[in-house]
Amino acid sequence: MDLDAALGLIAEVPDFPSPGVVFRDLSPLFAHGEGFQAVADALAATVDPDVDLLAAVEARGFMLAAAIGYARGLGVVLVRKPGKLPAVAGRVDYALEYGTATLELPDNVVAPAARVAVVDDVLATGGTVNAACRLLEKTGAVVTGVSVVLELAALPGREALDGRKVHSLQVV
Amino acid sequence: MDLDAALGLIAEVPDFPSPGVVFRDLSPLFAHGEGFQAVADALAATVDPDVDLLAAVEARGFMLAAAIGYARGLGVVLVRKPGKLPAVAGRVDYALEYGTATLELPDNVVAPAARVAVVDDVLATGGTVNAACRLLEKTGAVVTGVSVVLELAALPGREALDGRKVHSLQVV
Repeated sequence: MDLDAALGLIAEVPDFPSPGVVFRDLSPLFAHGEGFQAVADALAATVDPDVDLLAAVEARGFMLAAAIGYARGLGVVLVRKPGKLPAVAGRVDYALEYGTATLELPDNVVAPAARVAVVDDVLATGGTVNAACRLLEKTGAVVTGVSVVLELAALPGREALDGRKVHSLQVV
Repeated sequence: MDLDAALGLIAEVPDFPSPGVVFRDLSPLFAHGEGFQAVADALAATVDPDVDLLAAVEARGFMLAAAIGYARGLGVVLVRKPGKLPAVAGRVDYALEYGTATLELPDNVVAPAARVAVVDDVLATGGTVNAACRLLEKTGAVVTGVSVVLELAALPGREALDGRKVHSLQVV
């Protein structure tokens, strides 16, 4: 399946999770074997050749990072919501539209100065992905770039990432 | 990397998430490119050749199902915690040690009578995996089996699965 057809499997759902927001639903893409392979291959090609590790943002990022990791023989560190990890190397709090959220990184997984590419499904406001980058950097890693399937043009996700390299398969 | 060495990357963490429980931490395995490939390949080999779809249990199951899906060209349906999906085909409540939990299945993803293999990291009490199976069956799918990396011998996970086929790479 070619990449455009695969990306065409992504559904648009108006007013989810809140009124006025158009949710990009990757469920039909993930459920399509050839479509998922095509998107994973294209995303894998955006990851720098010299990275040591991928970082996956919970939870849909896990799907994409796992496929890229398998395809490229790269390990994946999971950037998790609080309470999931038995020991953490660090945590970061960040602001959401309403309230705050926290991400945690497992202990003893990311080597000092490891070169890490961050993977997620959609770059919207960039708040969560930026927090994941900051957390990795705080614990001594080097973020080589951010790879996402979709980038929302109407939102300032790229600016939120403070000059870090952003690779998106499609801007919508 | 051979499978035993890969499985040896899984860490044991005593007293997490609660006293007396030994947590099996797959973080070091996921972060090891060759180890992750070896485990994904071995788990992929346990999935029946005639399945139509994999089902991934949130959230570590996403890692394994995505790698198997990519390797085998199979799509993955995400069995999710509540509130993540814009439209659901069904939901199921199930008992935890303290309280209850809910899983949801996305709408319009699993075809009627689809043959689905359920993938997760660890089979412990079997409560969550059994709930995922029941949810899939309630919406008309056929569960061909359950594939997990680790099965805990001290817990009745296999019995909880009511005769469904269970494939585990290691019983600990």
